[in-house]
Amino acid sequence: MTRIRIGISGYGNVGRGVEQAVAGNSDMELVAIVTRRDPSSVKPATPGVLTVMEKDVSTLCGKVDVMILCGGSATDLPRQGPDYAALFNTVDSFDTHAAIPDYYDRVDAAAKVSGKLSLISCGWDPGLFSILRTYGLAALPQGESYTFWGKGVSQGHSDAIRRIQGVRDGIQYTIPVEEAVQEVRGGGTPTLTTRQKHLRSCFVVAEEGADRAQVEESIKSMPNYFADYDTTVEFITEQELREKHAEMPHGGFVFRSGETGVSGFKHVMEFSLKLDSNPEFTASVMAAYARAVCRMSREGRTGCITVLDVPPALLTQKTAEQLRKELL
Amino acid sequence: MTRIRIGISGYGNVGRGVEQAVAGNSDMELVAIVTRRDPSSVKPATPGVLTVMEKDVSTLCGKVDVMILCGGSATDLPRQGPDYAALFNTVDSFDTHAAIPDYYDRVDAAAKVSGKLSLISCGWDPGLFSILRTYGLAALPQGESYTFWGKGVSQGHSDAIRRIQGVRDGIQYTIPVEEAVQEVRGGGTPTLTTRQKHLRSCFVVAEEGADRAQVEESIKSMPNYFADYDTTVEFITEQELREKHAEMPHGGFVFRSGETGVSGFKHVMEFSLKLDSNPEFTASVMAAYARAVCRMSREGRTGCITVLDVPPALLTQKTAEQLRKELL
Repeated sequence: MTRIRIGISGYGNVGRGVEQAVAGNSDMELVAIVTRRDPSSVKPATPGVLTVMEKDVSTLCGKVDVMILCGGSATDLPRQGPDYAALFNTVDSFDTHAAIPDYYDRVDAAAKVSGKLSLISCGWDPGLFSILRTYGLAALPQGESYTFWGKGVSQGHSDAIRRIQGVRDGIQYTIPVEEAVQEVRGGGTPTLTTRQKHLRSCFVVAEEGADRAQVEESIKSMPNYFADYDTTVEFITEQELREKHAEMPHGGFVFRSGETGVSGFKHVMEFSLKLDSNPEFTASVMAAYARAVCRMSREGRTGCITVLDVPPALLTQKTAEQLRKELL
Repeated sequence: MTRIRIGISGYGNVGRGVEQAVAGNSDMELVAIVTRRDPSSVKPATPGVLTVMEKDVSTLCGKVDVMILCGGSATDLPRQGPDYAALFNTVDSFDTHAAIPDYYDRVDAAAKVSGKLSLISCGWDPGLFSILRTYGLAALPQGESYTFWGKGVSQGHSDAIRRIQGVRDGIQYTIPVEEAVQEVRGGGTPTLTTRQKHLRSCFVVAEEGADRAQVEESIKSMPNYFADYDTTVEFITEQELREKHAEMPHGGFVFRSGETGVSGFKHVMEFSLKLDSNPEFTASVMAAYARAVCRMSREGRTGCITVLDVPPALLTQKTAEQLRKELL
C-alpha cells in the first residue's frame, strides 16, 4: 500500500509534533516541510525530507497528499488557509472560535475551485471537544452542556502578562473551579458565571526594580483577560520559570447533563483530557484527520469540512471490518 | 419541514423509551408501533399512532422513514434485522459483540437488495463507547484502551441468577474496581485480569426453604458469568427487591492512555456515562441515529452501517452552519 504523503507548513511546536505523529503512523510518510525561514536553518528529525520556502510551495503540487498547516490562528492561517487550499488538501487547527464561520467560507471557496478538500479547526478544542459537545446534544437533547478548560497553559493569557510594564516573562495557567466541576459531574445543571468556572494562576518574572504591587494590580484588573476571574499572581525567578514551567500541559472537561422521558431519569456524559503536551496531542489529532482527508478526497469530496463531518471509521489505520470486529 | 416518520418494533422498555425520545425531538413523529401481541393490548402514550401486528408490517411501507427495532439481541434481532432491512430503513441496538460481523453481513445483504439503509448496534456499548474507543486509537495510536462497565444492572447476569434452583428472583450489579479505574485515570497502563476490572454484586430473593449456602455457592462458581470475578451475594426479601432494585441504572468508562513524540509525553482521554435508566438512554441515542439514517438514506446511501460510519454533524437538529457557529 502506498503511504499517505504528508507536508508540514510551519515548523514550530505543533509542526515538530506532527512530524513525530507521522513517524508513529506506519501508513504515512513526511515528504516536505514548508518554512518562511531560510530552509537550510530547518533541521528535520526525519531523513530525506524536502525543505521548501513558502514562496516556492507550488513546486510541491502532486508530491503531497495532505498539507498540515501548523501556523497560528492570529495571522498565519487567515492567509495560509485559503492560499494552501487552492493547491493542496489541507488540515489546520484554526481556533479563533468567533471567526470560524468566515474562515470556513473563505477556505471552502478556494477548495471548491481547486477541487481539493480542507479540514479546518482540528485538535481538541475546537476538535474532540466539539465532537463531544455534538454527541452530547444528540444523545440528550433536553439538557445542559458545560466545557471546562485546564489545568493548562493559556498562550494568549501568558502573552497578555508579558506585555505589562515591569514584566520580563510570565506564564498563565487556566484552572477549572473544582466545586463547579463536581456539581456538574453530580448531575447538577447550575448557571455559572465566568468567575465560578475558572481560576487564573499567573507566575511572573518581574523586571529589576519593578513595582510588583502595580504589576499584580495591572494583571488582575485587565479587562477580558483577568478582571472577570479570581486571579492569583506569584512572582518567581527566571530560573524557576525555566525549570518548573517550561512545558505546555493542558486538558479539560466536556459535560452533557440531561433528562429523558416522563419519569425524569437523569444522565451525565463526561469527556476529559489530561495532556502533558498540548501541541503534541493537537499534532497527533491532526495527523489522524489528515488520513481521513486523504480518504475523503479520494472519494471525490471537495471544499471545506470540519471534524463534525468526518465519520470516526475514517480516522484509524484499521479497516471497517477490523473496526466492527475489534472496537465496536 | 416535514417531520421524520418513525416506527417502533417492540414495545418493551426500550420501545417505550424511543417513544418518549421521539416526543422530545421536534423534527420527528411516531407513526406506528409494531407488535407481536394483540395490537389492541398496546396502549401507546402518543395519540394517533397505528398499532400493527408484525405479520402485517409490510402495510407500513411508504409510511415510515425509519423503523427502530427494539427487540432483543438473543432471538428477536437475528431474524428481525434482515427481515426489516428488506422493507425499511432501520436502526437497532444489536449488542452481541462476537456476532456483529455475521449480523452485519446479513443485514447488509438485505438492505443492499431493498435499497434501504440499516444502522446496527447503536446505543452506548456498542455505540458511544465504540466511538470513543475509535477516537482514542486515532488520537493516540501508541497507547492502551480500557473499558469499564457499571455500576449497573446486567440483564444477562440477572437472568443467570434466576435460573438457579432455589432462587425466586434476583438482580446483579456490575461494579468497576475503583483501584483499577484510578490507576488508569492516573495514566497507568496496567495489564488487568477479569477479576481486577469488575466486581459482581448479587441481590437474591430465595425460595422458601431453599439452601442459601448452596444458592450462594452455585452463583459464585458459575463459569463465565461469576467464577472469574469477586462476587458478593446478599439475600433480600421480595419487597426489598421491588422497592430498592426496580430501576435499571448503568454506565461506565472508556479510557485511552498513550504517549506521543520522543520525550514520552503522556496523555489520558476519558469518557464516562452515568445513566439513571439504561433503556431510556439507549433509546435516546437510537432516536438521534434514526435522524442520521434518514438523512444518509436521502443522500442515496444503502446497505448496513454502524455508528462509526456516521459523521457527528448528522445527529442533531442543528444545521452544519449552526454547528460550526455554536458547537465547534
